[in-house]
Amino acid sequence: MKEVFFTPGPSQLHPGVPEFLQEALAQNIPSISHRSGQFEKIYTAAADGVRAVLGAPASFHVFFLGSATEGMERIIQNCSAKHTFHFVNGAFAERFLQTAQELDRTTHELRAPYGEGFDFGSVDIPKETELICATHNETSTGVMLQPEDLQSLKQRYPKKLLALDIVSSAPYPTLSYEHLDAVFFSVQKCFGLPAGLGVLLVNDFCLEKSADILRLGQSVGTYHNFPTLVSFSEKNQTPETPNVLGIYLLGKVCEAFVATGMDKIRVGIDERAAFIYDFLDRSKSFSAFVKNPRMRSRTVISAACANASTIIKALGKQGLHVGSGYGKFKDQHIRIANFPAHTLSDTQRVLQSLEQLTAA
Amino acid sequence: MKEVFFTPGPSQLHPGVPEFLQEALAQNIPSISHRSGQFEKIYTAAADGVRAVLGAPASFHVFFLGSATEGMERIIQNCSAKHTFHFVNGAFAERFLQTAQELDRTTHELRAPYGEGFDFGSVDIPKETELICATHNETSTGVMLQPEDLQSLKQRYPKKLLALDIVSSAPYPTLSYEHLDAVFFSVQKCFGLPAGLGVLLVNDFCLEKSADILRLGQSVGTYHNFPTLVSFSEKNQTPETPNVLGIYLLGKVCEAFVATGMDKIRVGIDERAAFIYDFLDRSKSFSAFVKNPRMRSRTVISAACANASTIIKALGKQGLHVGSGYGKFKDQHIRIANFPAHTLSDTQRVLQSLEQLTAA
Repeated sequence: MKEVFFTPGPSQLHPGVPEFLQEALAQNIPSISHRSGQFEKIYTAAADGVRAVLGAPASFHVFFLGSATEGMERIIQNCSAKHTFHFVNGAFAERFLQTAQELDRTTHELRAPYGEGFDFGSVDIPKETELICATHNETSTGVMLQPEDLQSLKQRYPKKLLALDIVSSAPYPTLSYEHLDAVFFSVQKCFGLPAGLGVLLVNDFCLEKSADILRLGQSVGTYHNFPTLVSFSEKNQTPETPNVLGIYLLGKVCEAFVATGMDKIRVGIDERAAFIYDFLDRSKSFSAFVKNPRMRSRTVISAACANASTIIKALGKQGLHVGSGYGKFKDQHIRIANFPAHTLSDTQRVLQSLEQLTAA
Repeated sequence: MKEVFFTPGPSQLHPGVPEFLQEALAQNIPSISHRSGQFEKIYTAAADGVRAVLGAPASFHVFFLGSATEGMERIIQNCSAKHTFHFVNGAFAERFLQTAQELDRTTHELRAPYGEGFDFGSVDIPKETELICATHNETSTGVMLQPEDLQSLKQRYPKKLLALDIVSSAPYPTLSYEHLDAVFFSVQKCFGLPAGLGVLLVNDFCLEKSADILRLGQSVGTYHNFPTLVSFSEKNQTPETPNVLGIYLLGKVCEAFVATGMDKIRVGIDERAAFIYDFLDRSKSFSAFVKNPRMRSRTVISAACANASTIIKALGKQGLHVGSGYGKFKDQHIRIANFPAHTLSDTQRVLQSLEQLTAA
């Protein structure tokens, strides 16, 4: 039976991964030194590849971390001495807020009900705020913020750093990097890779802020503080022995994305998302959890339904793996990932099965 | 040409790795949820496997991190509120010390020249010290401390936590875990795995200390603080999406180690180490950098020589990859790893080549 993973990450592997893994073994990639020229080429390919698929300028530094969760910690440590502001509408935005609290920051927040977005025009961010944290795509609920809303937010607060969690949307959104200071993601979502690698991009304003905090005598972390990370990234290396194989695979997947064309990948995601939301809007058993079409994620789609666990189990028996609801929504939602590795025909299989399961 | 990696990590892969990777792909391990029962079994296999090959009791909690370097950071954050003590005789012990300094600890230290060990009997550790940090096997120089010295140190200071870096020796040493509080390693050394996974074992005294620090109102980090790590490890899960594939492979390699027998693996390492040191002691071109036989590492062997870079390049052309000297010893040493994945015949090839290259 063909197994397809529509889970919101870890998820379906990019179809090239088995071959890339074989190539890596043939070339002894897992054995090479992380201080070798060969590794530096792997780093460059991955960093350039990430910038290419995101549309991020060369002025953004690319750092490799253990996970996106680590990205939150390093951003808070290095981009805020004391005051952070958080847009909170789901579990991962909560995690970003909690990270700041655990690092003894004074946190400010604007909350929206889970499943909803924010009125960015009316938000009033306290003057003392150094860093604004937002979640582009709330994996827990399927709310996706609009790039133009984030851009106008930054235009209202140009001196505050803006960090954006793009964990489960990158490289789908076309973001204005001129209006962003830090973004981070993990590779087991849209990039279709094995988990175990976080990617953080920061601009020079973040590096300056980190240096400022250090000058205040405040710790910015250790081996993964920004001054250390950048001193190594400038040599196309990492401070510690990194996930060399993961970085290699990321470079290969980015190369494949560029070969396919990011526009084509985005059109495919849009088409499948439209297909799924159309199904949910017509269904009697399922409904889109996010009501406002403007806020609906294209990459992680939450469908409200009765008996989600039963449906997920029945789908699993057909080799189709979708995600459960997150946290308190565990038995009230199913989540369907719509990543570059997913195909329209497999997505149609899922929707047909959902229809059959609930018609029965 | 058969390529063999005697670099001190990343190094030669365990011979089972290609097959374990194929099994992982066939079972969709990279796509499964890190909150699934299937992952919990993978976590359990790896954690139990690690304890089995190290000889660590079940009372030690096993945490999975991004790297061993992260292990240093988490130990300092969670096991010391203010005062740490460091045994420093090489670059990795320096890194542990620097980590404490970057986290604003007041550090105390006993230094030994690179290439030497310590007189543990005469060390006087300040009363205020909460945490003692030592490096069992200094990867940069090939000095290995004796388990009985560490044991008697702990017996003299039973109330202070003792953290041991076993990055490039585990699972070789037979340690007295009764006299240790935290140990950590990475998988790309003796375990013969792709890099990108650190493993940290801590006992309940470390957890209590972390809770004490939190009660003082001091941060112990965020997603990887000990209270959070243990709350997930008790469920056989991790706080973030971890390197699932790496954890799976670690479990498989531990299983293979247990099947071979740790005693047999240790005997093999001892035999090859004796062979290498005998060669160095007889050679006119090479000499063991560590003079005191009691302090000589069995797993990372530093050989002093002239023109190390030239020798390393010439060996590389024969498909034999050894490490350069670390830092200031770059052109003065070669380092030969002696891990479970290495064989006596390949080790003999390296020594024969070294002899021929310097005889010419």
